[in-house]
Formats: sequence, structure tokens, C-alpha cells
Amino acid sequence: MSGSDTKAALVLSVDAMGGDEGPAPVVAGLALFLRDEPDVKILLHGDEATLAPMIAKRDLGHAVTIVHAPDVVAMTDKPSHVMRHGKTTSMWSAIDAVRTKEASVCVSCGNTGALMAVSMIRLRKAEGVNRPAIACLWPSRNAAGFNVMLDAGADIRADEEDLLTYAMMGASYARNGLGLKRPRVGLLNVGVEEHKGRAELKVAHELIARAAPKGEFEYVGFVEGGDLPSQRVDVVVTDGFTGNVALKTGEGTANLITDSLREAFAATVLSKMSALFAMSSLKRLRKKVDPRRVNGGVFLGLNGTVIKSHGSADATGVAAAVTLAAQLARSGFTDKLAARVASAASLAQDTDIEDASSETAKDT
Amino acid sequence: MSGSDTKAALVLSVDAMGGDEGPAPVVAGLALFLRDEPDVKILLHGDEATLAPMIAKRDLGHAVTIVHAPDVVAMTDKPSHVMRHGKTTSMWSAIDAVRTKEASVCVSCGNTGALMAVSMIRLRKAEGVNRPAIACLWPSRNAAGFNVMLDAGADIRADEEDLLTYAMMGASYARNGLGLKRPRVGLLNVGVEEHKGRAELKVAHELIARAAPKGEFEYVGFVEGGDLPSQRVDVVVTDGFTGNVALKTGEGTANLITDSLREAFAATVLSKMSALFAMSSLKRLRKKVDPRRVNGGVFLGLNGTVIKSHGSADATGVAAAVTLAAQLARSGFTDKLAARVASAASLAQDTDIEDASSETAKDT
Repeated sequence: MSGSDTKAALVLSVDAMGGDEGPAPVVAGLALFLRDEPDVKILLHGDEATLAPMIAKRDLGHAVTIVHAPDVVAMTDKPSHVMRHGKTTSMWSAIDAVRTKEASVCVSCGNTGALMAVSMIRLRKAEGVNRPAIACLWPSRNAAGFNVMLDAGADIRADEEDLLTYAMMGASYARNGLGLKRPRVGLLNVGVEEHKGRAELKVAHELIARAAPKGEFEYVGFVEGGDLPSQRVDVVVTDGFTGNVALKTGEGTANLITDSLREAFAATVLSKMSALFAMSSLKRLRKKVDPRRVNGGVFLGLNGTVIKSHGSADATGVAAAVTLAAQLARSGFTDKLAARVASAASLAQDTDIEDASSETAKDT
Repeated sequence: MSGSDTKAALVLSVDAMGGDEGPAPVVAGLALFLRDEPDVKILLHGDEATLAPMIAKRDLGHAVTIVHAPDVVAMTDKPSHVMRHGKTTSMWSAIDAVRTKEASVCVSCGNTGALMAVSMIRLRKAEGVNRPAIACLWPSRNAAGFNVMLDAGADIRADEEDLLTYAMMGASYARNGLGLKRPRVGLLNVGVEEHKGRAELKVAHELIARAAPKGEFEYVGFVEGGDLPSQRVDVVVTDGFTGNVALKTGEGTANLITDSLREAFAATVLSKMSALFAMSSLKRLRKKVDPRRVNGGVFLGLNGTVIKSHGSADATGVAAAVTLAAQLARSGFTDKLAARVASAASLAQDTDIEDASSETAKDT
């Protein structure tokens, strides 16, 4: 930020506390990240007496500025409690740095519910957004290696206009986060036929199809649970209840399989030998398929971007989340997203007026 | 059925047609089944000219009686079409044999939507059931190897009383199908805390907890997607939209992993060697974790039990579905289920009256 810089340095806000393992993996992750990105500045929020020696030991003082916040949001704290009493926590402080525009993007390993609640009251919903969403990355057969799914659990409900907003936000995230110029968007349902599913899905189907040209995405129509890891689609739109169940079902299935695999290999001498040969492939596989390794659920639809890193993320996981934060900050994602969402809102209003009668006749 | 039998022979009704591969795997599956169960009688519905030589060739005439039905429900036929024009199909004929009590349980590999629609109009809903459900088996860490999940997609909606009925039906199925005396039942939600989830889930939570003693199951409370394959629970209750998405997400995840595994093993000479050693373990694993191999979605809540076998089931899959049918028929499942459901209905009414005011005050 000195006068000789041709452009302002990128500044990210990182909550050092609140993860399952405390600040150690966060600082280690920052060290990994800064090795590749030495010019990025970090505002690190947490207890100064704890953090200062860790930063000094890793010699990160040139890039990291500690912002003292004495308190920590526990994993068991209720969001409502944190909203009322959390002003002195590192999480609150980290979010506020985005609010005041000192930093572009915030990263926290803390309690998801509290992080969403504090983000909502401090950053406020972006214009045209009724329900913000959490977008997660889903391991897939696509070249990028991942699909985007939203909402992964910010809200348990979504009506047709929320689903349209999710489509716009998800496409913008896939463009800026995964580098896909024209993402393919699908709407999660119990079948791909047009007559299937709940009433709000049929309306959303029409709204999203019409928004596709303006949103610069391709709408592939209804998709099913089996398409979440597929090549058919880049962005899967659903309500936060269904999305959360799907995400946890995918994790549970992946864990069951990899555990069974380990048992299968441990069963006999021959299979133990084969495990020796296969172990590195299996480790890579486990990394690929366990959605928890895909670190960084992104809160979309607020006046500022917040990334939720997994509570038990290790240094590699934290580095992945901070790298994603840097990428989104560089692409000017927050502003681009705001523009998309505002256009989605006007689009939904247009179609409401235009098609109110025909929708009713056809779908109810 | 000769006069010298001490008890009436078990009779099952099997739809020979309508699967992806036609009648061949169905007849082959029956041959497998009858090797272990020579005393069971089969009513096999389909085109007599096609089936007669297949039955003769395998020498199954002593057990199998062909019921001629000239037409076949295609996988692409809409349920509404089959309901109006399907009277001459093998599926209709197979269901009608349960309706007339000629057979105890019906098995079909045909189109799920049509099978449910025809089952509904021919068998009718059991007393006290508003929405019938499809129960599927989910590979799990439990000793039985499977958990029960319902509804897997019979209906896209379920209110609190439907969810209570599902709990009673699922527990009865786990008792009679998996041999669990006192099944543990959980209600699928986005978190295990009592304050989480949609309004109808909070009401269902109370209803199911109170029904547990009478239903002779243990209610473990809310469970998450990750618990579907877990040891925490034997029966997972959810609406058919969420259940269907979860089922297909589990399948898609399992397929992604097993395909990645095959690629990992094909990558290098060393890994090819290890694959040779490991292949049989991997094959067993794939069978275990791919929910499609768990053959037999059971329609619950009708006046008669119908088992949906996977459309692409091979002989082993068909044999598994028919074995399940025999087990349920022997346990007198249809009558036991009807009794459970009737008691659930009266239970829900009781609690409605008793708690209408307190529920409203607490949950809305």
C-alpha cells in the first residue's frame, strides 16, 4: 500500500480462531499460501498474545497484520447468542474488515451457523437477494474436477425466485471461481421430465430458462441427485434443506466406501500386498471424493464475500480456502455478483407480470 | 396346493416383462430362487408364447404358472397413460393377483411410476394411510448390512402425519424384512438439534417420539444425511423428494468413486498388479455400496405388498427381490403393517387433540 505500488495490494481477512484445532492450522495454512502469493496482505483476527509468537516464528510479519480480538466463537455456540454477544470475537472482527472494505474477502473455520448469522447482520443482504446461499464444490467428472452446488444449507427454504437468484449467483461463482465462461446450470429435482416435482420447481424451471441468456449460462433443465458428480452440469441449484441432506449423504457414502476399502485391503496377505502398491492411488482418491477436502463453502448474496473453511481443516485445507478467497477477490467477484443478482431481480419481476396467468393455468 | 399339504403353499406374483432386459433375467432369477425354495409357487405374468419355452427349457413348470398378458408397460410410458390403458399389461395382471389374494406379494422390474400408479388404483391405500411410500435398503455399517429409508420417491410431499405413518411402516418393515426386533428410527433433517428444520419436522419429531412405545421401535430423534449409511439408526424417515435426491446422490457418489478406483488401478503397471490382487475385494465392495444392487424397493401403505425390482436387475438381483417377497409373505407382513398403520392413525388423532394448542405456541 506504499505510494510506489502501481496498484493496491490484495487484502484478505482471516479469522484465526474458532476452528476445531485452534489457530495452529490457520497460521500454517497462511504460511503455505504466502509462499505462492507473497504480495497478498492478511488481516489475521484473534488473540494477539497467542498469535504474535506464531507469526514471528514463521516469519510472516511482512504480510500478516494481527487484529486483536479477545474472544472466540465456540462450535457449540448458538447463532442467536453470537449475534447478541459476539462483538469481541475474532469471527465478528474478521467479517467487519470486509464490511469496512479494509479487506476484500473473509475466511473463517468457525461455526457455520454463527458465521452466516453474523455475516447477515454485519454485511446485510445484497440488493435483490431474499435468501443468501452457501455454495459448495462437489467432486465431479468435469474437467474442472468440481461442480458447484447451492444452497448447501444457509436456509431450509427457497421459493422460485430464490432458486432463480441461486442460478444467477451459482453461474457467477462458477465463472469467477472455476474459470468456466459459460457454465451449465441445472435445477435439482426427482426426475428430468418437465412434469415432475414440486410446484415451485416448475415455476423456477421457466424463470431460469428465460434468465439464461442474460445470466450468460446454459440452462440444462432438471437434474437428479446422480448428476451432482456428473459431467452433465456445472452448477446444481436446490433449496438449502435438500442441498444439505445431499451434501451429507455424499460425504457419508464416500466415507463408508473408503472405510470398506481399507478393510478389504486389510483382510488378507495378498490384499495387504496390493494395498501397499495401491495406497498412493487410494489416498489421492480419498482426497478427491471426500467433499470435506474441497475446502471453502462460499456465502453468496451478501454485500461482501465470506468463505467458510471446514472446522477441522488442516494447513492444506486452510491454504485452499485462502487461495479461493484470493482468486475471488482478484476477479472482483463481489461486485460482479451484485450486478448479476440485481439483474435477476428485475428479470423475475418482469416475468412475474408477463406470465402470471399462463403459469397459473399450466402448473396448478 | 394338493390336499395332502399341511399348509397352503406360498404363492408370489411376478411380472415377467417391463424390465430393461425383458423376461430373460426374470426367468433366470426365478430359477435361482427356486433352487433354494422349491416349494414356493410363482404366478408369472406376461406373453405366454414368449415365456412358455423359457420355463420349459429351465424345467420350472412344477413351480411356475404362466398368466397370459399380451402387453408390456414400457419404461417411457407415463403413469397416467398406463392407468387408463394398461389393463392388458403384465404389470396390471401381476398386481391384480395380489388384489384377488391369489398371491401374497407382487414383484416387478417395470417402470416405477406406473407400478405405483397401478398399485394405488388396484390395491387402494390401506386404512389410515394418506400417502403410501417406497422403502429402500441402504448399505450401512449395521450388522444387518442395511438401513431402511423411506419414502424413496413415491410422493414428493409428506406432512407430519405422513412422516409418523412412515415411521410406523418403516419399523414394521425392518422388523419383518431385516429381522430387527426393536428397530431404531430417525427423522432426516439438516442437523440433530431440536430447534432445526422445517415446521412439519418439528411436529413429526414430537409425534414419532410419542408413538415409539406403541410402535415398538426406539426413536433416536433427528438424523442427518451422513447417518443414512451409519450405525446410529436402522430406519430413516423422510419425504419422497428428499429421499429420492438422497438415494440418487448416494448412487452417483458410489459410482464416481468405484469408477475413479478402476482408473486409479489402470494407471500404472504397479497399480495394475495390485488390481489383480484386489479385484475380488473390489467387486464385493462395489456390490455392497451400489444401492442399485440392493434390489427391492417395497411399496408400503397399500392393501397388498408390491416390490419394485431394479429395471436393469440381473438374475441375482431378481432372485434377491423374489427372496425378499417370500420373506415378507411368510412373516404375514401385509396384515401386520395394516395393524400398525391403523394404530398410528388413531395415535396421531389423539395427539392432535391433546397438543394442538401447545404445538402451535411452540413451533409457529
